Amino acid sequence: MVIVMQKTARAEEIQKIVDTIEALQLRVHISEGTERTIVGIIGNKSVLTDIPLESFDGVEKIVHVTHPFKMASREFHPEPTIIEVGNVRIGAGTPVIMAGPCAVESREQILQTAHAVKAAGATCLRGGAFKPRSSPYSFQGLKEEGLKLLAEARKETGLAIVTEVMDPVNLPMVAEYADILQIGARNMQNFHLLKEVGKTGKPVMLKRGIAATIEEWLMSAEYILSEGNPNVMLCERGIRTFEKYTRNTMDLNAIPVIKHLSHLPVIADPSHGTGVARYVPAMSKASIAAGADGLILEVHPNPAKAMSDGPQSLTLEQFDQLMKELGNR
Amino acid sequence: MVIVMQKTARAEEIQKIVDTIEALQLRVHISEGTERTIVGIIGNKSVLTDIPLESFDGVEKIVHVTHPFKMASREFHPEPTIIEVGNVRIGAGTPVIMAGPCAVESREQILQTAHAVKAAGATCLRGGAFKPRSSPYSFQGLKEEGLKLLAEARKETGLAIVTEVMDPVNLPMVAEYADILQIGARNMQNFHLLKEVGKTGKPVMLKRGIAATIEEWLMSAEYILSEGNPNVMLCERGIRTFEKYTRNTMDLNAIPVIKHLSHLPVIADPSHGTGVARYVPAMSKASIAAGADGLILEVHPNPAKAMSDGPQSLTLEQFDQLMKELGNR
Amino acid sequence: MVIVMQKTARAEEIQKIVDTIEALQLRVHISEGTERTIVGIIGNKSVLTDIPLESFDGVEKIVHVTHPFKMASREFHPEPTIIEVGNVRIGAGTPVIMAGPCAVESREQILQTAHAVKAAGATCLRGGAFKPRSSPYSFQGLKEEGLKLLAEARKETGLAIVTEVMDPVNLPMVAEYADILQIGARNMQNFHLLKEVGKTGKPVMLKRGIAATIEEWLMSAEYILSEGNPNVMLCERGIRTFEKYTRNTMDLNAIPVIKHLSHLPVIADPSHGTGVARYVPAMSKASIAAGADGLILEVHPNPAKAMSDGPQSLTLEQFDQLMKELGNR
Amino acid sequence: MVIVMQKTARAEEIQKIVDTIEALQLRVHISEGTERTIVGIIGNKSVLTDIPLESFDGVEKIVHVTHPFKMASREFHPEPTIIEVGNVRIGAGTPVIMAGPCAVESREQILQTAHAVKAAGATCLRGGAFKPRSSPYSFQGLKEEGLKLLAEARKETGLAIVTEVMDPVNLPMVAEYADILQIGARNMQNFHLLKEVGKTGKPVMLKRGIAATIEEWLMSAEYILSEGNPNVMLCERGIRTFEKYTRNTMDLNAIPVIKHLSHLPVIADPSHGTGVARYVPAMSKASIAAGADGLILEVHPNPAKAMSDGPQSLTLEQFDQLMKELGNR
Repeated sequence: MVIVMQKTARAEEIQKIVDTIEALQLRVHISEGTERTIVGIIGNKSVLTDIPLESFDGVEKIVHVTHPFKMASREFHPEPTIIEVGNVRIGAGTPVIMAGPCAVESREQILQTAHAVKAAGATCLRGGAFKPRSSPYSFQGLKEEGLKLLAEARKETGLAIVTEVMDPVNLPMVAEYADILQIGARNMQNFHLLKEVGKTGKPVMLKRGIAATIEEWLMSAEYILSEGNPNVMLCERGIRTFEKYTRNTMDLNAIPVIKHLSHLPVIADPSHGTGVARYVPAMSKASIAAGADGLILEVHPNPAKAMSDGPQSLTLEQFDQLMKELGNR
Repeated sequence: MVIVMQKTARAEEIQKIVDTIEALQLRVHISEGTERTIVGIIGNKSVLTDIPLESFDGVEKIVHVTHPFKMASREFHPEPTIIEVGNVRIGAGTPVIMAGPCAVESREQILQTAHAVKAAGATCLRGGAFKPRSSPYSFQGLKEEGLKLLAEARKETGLAIVTEVMDPVNLPMVAEYADILQIGARNMQNFHLLKEVGKTGKPVMLKRGIAATIEEWLMSAEYILSEGNPNVMLCERGIRTFEKYTRNTMDLNAIPVIKHLSHLPVIADPSHGTGVARYVPAMSKASIAAGADGLILEVHPNPAKAMSDGPQSLTLEQFDQLMKELGNR
Repeated sequence: MVIVMQKTARAEEIQKIVDTIEALQLRVHISEGTERTIVGIIGNKSVLTDIPLESFDGVEKIVHVTHPFKMASREFHPEPTIIEVGNVRIGAGTPVIMAGPCAVESREQILQTAHAVKAAGATCLRGGAFKPRSSPYSFQGLKEEGLKLLAEARKETGLAIVTEVMDPVNLPMVAEYADILQIGARNMQNFHLLKEVGKTGKPVMLKRGIAATIEEWLMSAEYILSEGNPNVMLCERGIRTFEKYTRNTMDLNAIPVIKHLSHLPVIADPSHGTGVARYVPAMSKASIAAGADGLILEVHPNPAKAMSDGPQSLTLEQFDQLMKELGNR
Repeated sequence: MVIVMQKTARAEEIQKIVDTIEALQLRVHISEGTERTIVGIIGNKSVLTDIPLESFDGVEKIVHVTHPFKMASREFHPEPTIIEVGNVRIGAGTPVIMAGPCAVESREQILQTAHAVKAAGATCLRGGAFKPRSSPYSFQGLKEEGLKLLAEARKETGLAIVTEVMDPVNLPMVAEYADILQIGARNMQNFHLLKEVGKTGKPVMLKRGIAATIEEWLMSAEYILSEGNPNVMLCERGIRTFEKYTRNTMDLNAIPVIKHLSHLPVIADPSHGTGVARYVPAMSKASIAAGADGLILEVHPNPAKAMSDGPQSLTLEQFDQLMKELGNR
C-alpha cells in the first residue's frame, strides 16, 4: 500500500501517519519527491483494513498495490480448481454444457427438455424453481414443486441439477435437491446468503452482478471460500451498458482476466448475456474460444410459451444444432 | 402494449397472435402500414405478464406504453405520500435531515454524534449495526450491540433511528429497534427481503441499486407496497459510472423524475453519492434545490478513526456549518 | 412510428396531431385504448424527421418501429458487402488480418514489423502517422514522414495500408498514401470528417465510439454511405464501462448484432478492446468465433520501447504464435 | 509516479528500470516490501510521457500520483479564471444565463427569442448555425445565414453570442460572428479542432464528452490552453448511463470536483442534461446550488415547431418563470 501525501502536507501530518502504521507493527518507507512525499507500507496490510488512512490530514490518496482477494487468487492457489459434481468435472479442460429452461413450469416441460439436452450433449440441467422477477406481479416459480420435478429429471437422465437459491430461509430446501447452487446476479453482494452457501460446502455458481467489477465478483467468491467451501465457479452473464439491441453486454474479456487472476472455473451464459436467441450460437462459440470452462444455456421446448425469458431461449432443435457445431456430439 | 411485426410476417402469424390475445378477453387493434403491421392491445394487460409475445413467430418487438409499476405510480395515487415517524414528517415539504456515522462503533461515538447532530438540526439518527462490506475481512458491524446503542441514543435525544437490515433472518431483531428500516443498494433487488419488510408495515428507506434504472427502483418499491406497507421512501445514493474522481455519480435528475412519476418521498445521500467529504456540502444544497424531501449524511466525531467510510464523513463542525448554510438552524 | 398520447390528452390535441400528419400526405391510424389513445403513422416517415412530435401537447412518447439507418441496413442491401483492397477481400468469408504498430516510429521499426507480420499471415499493415492523444504533451505521430514510411513498407511487402485520418484538413494527404482510411473512436461522430471521407470513395474503417450505441455507429456509417462511398467496414474496439482490469470492454455481442442488422463487414480490435497484450490471443480467437470478418492487432518489435500503447502490443513472436493458433499460417 | 513490480520480478528486471529512469536524469527510490518491490520516481516526469514502463519485464502496474493536466490545474493557477465577454463576466460569482433555441431557424424565431430571453435576464444568446446530427437526413443548420441572424440579434439586444463550431474548415467563419465558440460533446476529443480554437484566443465553451471522465475533459481544456488561449469554460451537459427516463444523466458532482481541481469556470446545461423540459427548472436550481458559474438553456417560442430538441426546450413563458424563481429578475 502506498500513501500519496498532498503537496501541502506538513511534517507532523506525515509523522502522525508513520506513528499510526508503526504502532501496528508495520514498517514504513518514506520517499520524498520534488513535489510531494509518498509513504510506502511494508508488512501484512490486513491489520490496516479498517484504518481510514484517506481521512488523515494531509493525505491525497491511497494506492493499493495488491489484490484484496486472497483465497480466490491464483497467487494463493496456482493450480486451476476442478469442481467435481458426480461424473462432471468443471474446470478440467473440456467445456461443460448446462442447459434447460429459465423456469421449471411443468413435469412434461422439464422432463422433455432434460432428455433432449442430454441427448444433445449436456451434462447438467438448469431450471429455476425460485425466480427473481423485477415485478411482484410476474410468475415467481413453482418453488418446492419445481425442485421435486428437477430431482425427478435427474433421476431419469443422470444430469446434475443447477438451480438458483434466493435467500437463506429457503437454502436448506434448495440445497437438498440441487447439485450446484446458483447465486443470481442480483444477489452477488447478498453477503449473508454468500456466507450461508459457503457453509453448505456444495458447489456454487456465482453469477456476476449487473454492474459488478471483476474485483468485486472475486471478493464475493472470497466470502464463500472463506467459509471453507472451495467449490466456487464464476458465471459471466453480461453487464449493463447503454446498448439497447441486446439485453446485456457480455464481457468476454472477463474470461481471460479471471483465468489470469484466479484459479476458479468460469462459465459463460450467452442467453442472459445477449437476451436474444438469434445471437446465442455466435456468442456460445466466442465464449468457448475465449477460454470458458462451460456454457449455461436456456433451452425450452416451446419458447413462445415460456413463462419467462422466452426471447432468449433456444428451441430443442436449435440447441442440438449448436451442440453439433461446437463439436459436443 | 404494441406489437411490431417483422416486415416478413405472414398473415397466419399475425392471426395466431390475435387469437392468443382475444382468448385472454383483450381486444386487438390492427394497423397495417406500408412496410409492416402493428398490433395494439386494448384492456387490462396484466393477464399478459407471463406471455412471451417477443417469442412468437413474426414478431419484431414489443413496446410497452404504460409503466409496469402501479401502487408506486402517481397516476394511482395523485397526492404525495407523507410518512410519519414520531414527530418527523417525511415528504411534507420541509426537508428532513438524517445524520450519523456510517457504522455504530462505540457508545461514546454514537451518543456524542447523536447529541451533536440533534443540536445542529437533524431529526433522525443514522448508524449501521449490520454492515455490508465487499470484503469478508472488513469490520461487519456491532450487530445487536449496535442496535442497543442506537436505542439508547434515541432515548437520550428523541431522534428517530434509521438503520440497515441486510437479511430476513435478522429482520425481526432490527425491526424491534429501528424506526426506519434501510434497504441498502446491494439489496434493492433482494426480493425476499423486500417482501418481508413489506409485511412489517414499518417505514422503509429503499436505496437505489448501483446500476438500477428508476423503473426498476420503483418496481422494488412496488414489492414492498404490494405487501400492504405504504411507508416507503426512496434514497438516491449515486450510480456507478466510469468517473473516477468520485465514488459514485449522483443522479439528481432522478429527483424530479420520481416526483413526476411517483408519490413516494425521495431522500438524497450525498455522502455515498460523492464519496468525498469535501464535495458533500455542495451536493447537499443541490439535492435540496432539486426537490429532495430530505438528506441522509454521514457524520463522525473523528472521520480519521471511522471504521468505515471515513473519507466521506463530515466532522461534527462541518455538519453544523452545513446545517447553518442550509438554513436548518 | 407510433405516438402514445397521455392519459389526459384531449380530443383537440389528438386532432392537431392528426392534422399535422395528414398535411404531410401521411395516413394515421387511431387506436383508442381503455386508458389512452395511440396514433400510428403510415407512409414514408422521412418527412417527419424534423417535426418534434414529442413536444406536441398531450403526447406521452414517440415510439420508432423502424431503424433510422437505411443504406447501412440489411433490409436495404440483403447481400453482405465485400470490400476489395488490391488482392484483399474483406467480408468474403476468410478473416483478414491487419497488424502493425500503434504508431509509425522509424523506418527500421515499420519495415521490420511489416516483413514480420506479412510472413506470419497478415495482409494489411496498420500504423498511425497522425495520433490522437488525450494529452497535448504526448507524441502526436510522424505525420507525412510516417505516411511515406508506410508507403515504402507497402512497396516492399505488398501489404495494404490502413492508417488514421483525424481531420478534413489533412485528409487529402492521408488519402494519397492510405489504402484504407481509419476513422478513430473519438471521431465517430465528427460528421464533417465522415462526409469528407465519404466523398473520397476509398475504403473506410469506422471505429465504434467509446460510448456509442450500435445504432449510432450505423448512423455514422450512413453518413459515409450517403455520400456515395459503399466501402465501409466497422471496427469494434471496446466500449467504456466501470471495469478497471481492462482498458475497455469488448462488446462481441455487436458482431452478430451487426451481421443481423447490416451488410457491412466488421473487424475486431482486441488490442484496444482489452488494452493488455496478455489477453489479446484469447479475445482474437473469440472475435473470430463470434463471426468477425477480420482482426486488427497491434504488433511491435519491442513493446517496451513503443512510443504509444506498448502494453497492448504483441511482440513479433507472439503475433506469429497467434497466427499459428488461428490457423492463418 | 510509482512502479509496482510483480512478485516474481527479478533483480535484473528492476535494475533495467532503474537504469532507464536514471538515464533520463530522474532519481529513483526503491522500496522492498515483504512481497514485492516498488520503485518511486522523483523529478520532472514529463520526460517519461512516452516511455511505456508498463511493458517492461517484471512490471505489474504503474501508478500516477499527480494529475496529467497542468495549465488547467488549480495548483498551477490558484485564482479562479474570470472570462470577460463584453460586459459579461463568467466565473466572477454571479451566475451567467445563456439562453436561446437549439438551432437558429428563422429571422423571426431568433429575434423574438433574443428579445424575450434578454427581458427575462439572460446575457448571452445561444443558437446553433451548424448542427451535429446523428442522422445525415436531419436538418443540419442554416450555416452562414444562421450566423448572420445571430449577429443581427446581438446588434438588436446586446446579448453575447455562443454558437457551435464543428470543424476547422468553418472555424474562421464561425469565429467572425461568435463571441463564445462552443465545442460540442461529440468533438471534445477532436484534437485538431481544439488546437485551432486555441489559436483564435476567443472564449471557448468546451462541452463534456458523453462518456468522458473529468480528467479527460480537463486534458481537452489543456489542448486549448496550451495553444495560448486562457479563455476556456467547461460545460457539464450530462453523461450517458443506462437510465432511460432522461436523455442523459447530469453529473452535478462534476461541478464541485472541477472547482477543486481547476480554476476554469463551469456552466451547466440542464436542457441536454435531462432532455425533458419538465425537469429543467429543478435541475437549473440544483446546478446553481452546486456552484455552477452559469446555465445554458434551450428556449424556443414554440417548442412543438422546433426543428431540433423541441422536447427539452422551455417556452418563453417557462423561461421567464424560471428566471424569477432563480432570482435573476
